[in-house]
Amino acid sequence: MKRKVSALVGICLSALLLVGCGKSNNNSSSSNNDNTTTTKKSDDFQTTGDASNDQYQGVIENGRYKTSKSRGVGVQQDSENMLNLKNFDTGMTDISKKFFSTKDYLFQEGQYLTTDTVENWLGRKSKDNPDGLNPESNGNGANRNPMYVQQIGEQDYMKNNNGKLSLAGMTIGIGMNRKDYYQKEKYGATYTQSISRDKMVEEGKIAAKKVLERVRKLDGVSNDTPIVIAMFQQAPNDSLVGGTFYAYAVSNSGTDLGDWKELDYKNVTFPVTSGKSVPNSNDEKSFENFKDKVQKFFPNLAGVTAQAKYDGKSLQSMNININTQFYSETEIISFTQYVAQAAQSYLPNRIPIDIQILGSDGKTQAFLSRDSGDAKFETHVFTNS
Amino acid sequence: MKRKVSALVGICLSALLLVGCGKSNNNSSSSNNDNTTTTKKSDDFQTTGDASNDQYQGVIENGRYKTSKSRGVGVQQDSENMLNLKNFDTGMTDISKKFFSTKDYLFQEGQYLTTDTVENWLGRKSKDNPDGLNPESNGNGANRNPMYVQQIGEQDYMKNNNGKLSLAGMTIGIGMNRKDYYQKEKYGATYTQSISRDKMVEEGKIAAKKVLERVRKLDGVSNDTPIVIAMFQQAPNDSLVGGTFYAYAVSNSGTDLGDWKELDYKNVTFPVTSGKSVPNSNDEKSFENFKDKVQKFFPNLAGVTAQAKYDGKSLQSMNININTQFYSETEIISFTQYVAQAAQSYLPNRIPIDIQILGSDGKTQAFLSRDSGDAKFETHVFTNS
Repeated sequence: MKRKVSALVGICLSALLLVGCGKSNNNSSSSNNDNTTTTKKSDDFQTTGDASNDQYQGVIENGRYKTSKSRGVGVQQDSENMLNLKNFDTGMTDISKKFFSTKDYLFQEGQYLTTDTVENWLGRKSKDNPDGLNPESNGNGANRNPMYVQQIGEQDYMKNNNGKLSLAGMTIGIGMNRKDYYQKEKYGATYTQSISRDKMVEEGKIAAKKVLERVRKLDGVSNDTPIVIAMFQQAPNDSLVGGTFYAYAVSNSGTDLGDWKELDYKNVTFPVTSGKSVPNSNDEKSFENFKDKVQKFFPNLAGVTAQAKYDGKSLQSMNININTQFYSETEIISFTQYVAQAAQSYLPNRIPIDIQILGSDGKTQAFLSRDSGDAKFETHVFTNS
Repeated sequence: MKRKVSALVGICLSALLLVGCGKSNNNSSSSNNDNTTTTKKSDDFQTTGDASNDQYQGVIENGRYKTSKSRGVGVQQDSENMLNLKNFDTGMTDISKKFFSTKDYLFQEGQYLTTDTVENWLGRKSKDNPDGLNPESNGNGANRNPMYVQQIGEQDYMKNNNGKLSLAGMTIGIGMNRKDYYQKEKYGATYTQSISRDKMVEEGKIAAKKVLERVRKLDGVSNDTPIVIAMFQQAPNDSLVGGTFYAYAVSNSGTDLGDWKELDYKNVTFPVTSGKSVPNSNDEKSFENFKDKVQKFFPNLAGVTAQAKYDGKSLQSMNININTQFYSETEIISFTQYVAQAAQSYLPNRIPIDIQILGSDGKTQAFLSRDSGDAKFETHVFTNS
């Protein structure tokens, strides 16, 4: 099992790095932690410390990270498109920040939903599995009942009361399918059934209600612990981008979910594949200009791809991968300098941008990044000597 | 040919990243170039711009990087241990900085030694190849004449005279073997002949003299162009570290080489392989403490290795690779935060340190770096969303 998961992580993280789409503003900054012990000690827990003001500190117990009670389930559920998992995790954290400030709350991997529980909830409803959130099986014919709920994630937000950790908030992410994949017989061809957005939203609300009711009953979850339920639309298995969160709601107490807040996030790849639309064509032009300059730099070819994250029509961040073949260390350094200038001149201003420069083997040789608001790019070349 | 080189680059750069030993101080900094055109235009050339004060700007012609006239030769010569090539390139640049300031000189890949010339010089002396720097063949028996000279590199240092580039300095690197590898018959077993350090130094001086005389005669190289000759000791093929420069001399005019300046550089890997000595055991202890902390963080194993660069007994820089398996994006972020603190607490102070965090597939998930003199680490997590 663990081995299998490991392999998946392998395959998929690699895919990730080759596609990539950045939120460097949340993750690139100097450690502003002044203590020189590795951990902030307290009565019975420690934290990872904070690499920046807008990141949560994670919980450590006895020098060991407190991993999720359902660790690895997400990796299984998203094995076909690991971008879904990565977007799911980071998206949950981003939404959580709207309610639980990084200054007042500590981050803890989900400790209340176990692997067994999550796997049962993600299954079909049946005599053996009354808690299944997906409809009972009606066989694998053309009109089979689709699998709507694909993954469930939990994040705990803790407060430190005189050295004792207490649960002060929770975010539950629910990943919903727009495509239902199935085989008519084992090892047979894979069939796909589409799920309309309206149907996904409707089923998502039903699942959210059930999940909230069940989570409220869990040991250690009080009736008035704020619980954020965040709804995620899974990207298709063959998508080059991961899914996005499309709505969330907050239950401040009991099983009342309050109103749903809609989200309009969209992930786009550049160069744009024919037929696909772009929220803002100027961004596409900027990328193409940048790409042309960079590809001229060496006689040998360079591949330039990007992922852009949009909120409505407004570009939020960009992550660019440049893949080329280097013949010397000096070529890598010169190329990185050039890319820094080309990026500053041609790419959209004032948004966080990550650029990774990869060798012909796909390993990172250098990277550049710019935080939101900055004009210039930080550059780093992985020299070795 | 090109394809073959490409493959080599692939294999080797990957090896590189997994071993790695940093000079982040020279290569991590914000672009301090204020113009917003991608290149500084002049009459007939452009430059890559400068990613930092202590880096050279490279020469661009018609929007294309001016690549070396012997591009790819080094990749062939060092295919068995690409760390040799990477150290050779960066080491030549470092020595050049002692004579050609990054402010007054532009960097140009070697334009005077062609692939044919270098390949002839690296061959054995023979009727067909009178310019071979290696001794005539006496067969591949036990007492065969070893191959002493393994690689030759050229770097040009240019000045901008009213928009015209002119050669103002040159650095020639010569890579010398301590091990001579050969087969007694084609596709047979590989035999190894050791070359004493004294013999290497002696042969190196002979080769240096010949090379200087020949370079002086090249079209475009004037009699009073300063030429730095830098001598490099190749690391064995099976070494986890690359070679180092052991001496250099400067010819200010003609064929007079001036005095040789000895260098005492050494590359060391941590954990230290049994039997190997370390210039400073405190550095080893520091690394081991750091390693223990990091390996405790997750229940699953993490591999922690480092390369340290020494000048005499004084640690110059460290490059650390941490390889582990992540089950979620939040684990990567928390791990990176923790590593930033552990590194600050346990690793040697006041030297540049690079730390790469790699997933189970060997792809970079996050990296941390600290410049010389800084206390805190910059952190960057390659999130994707």
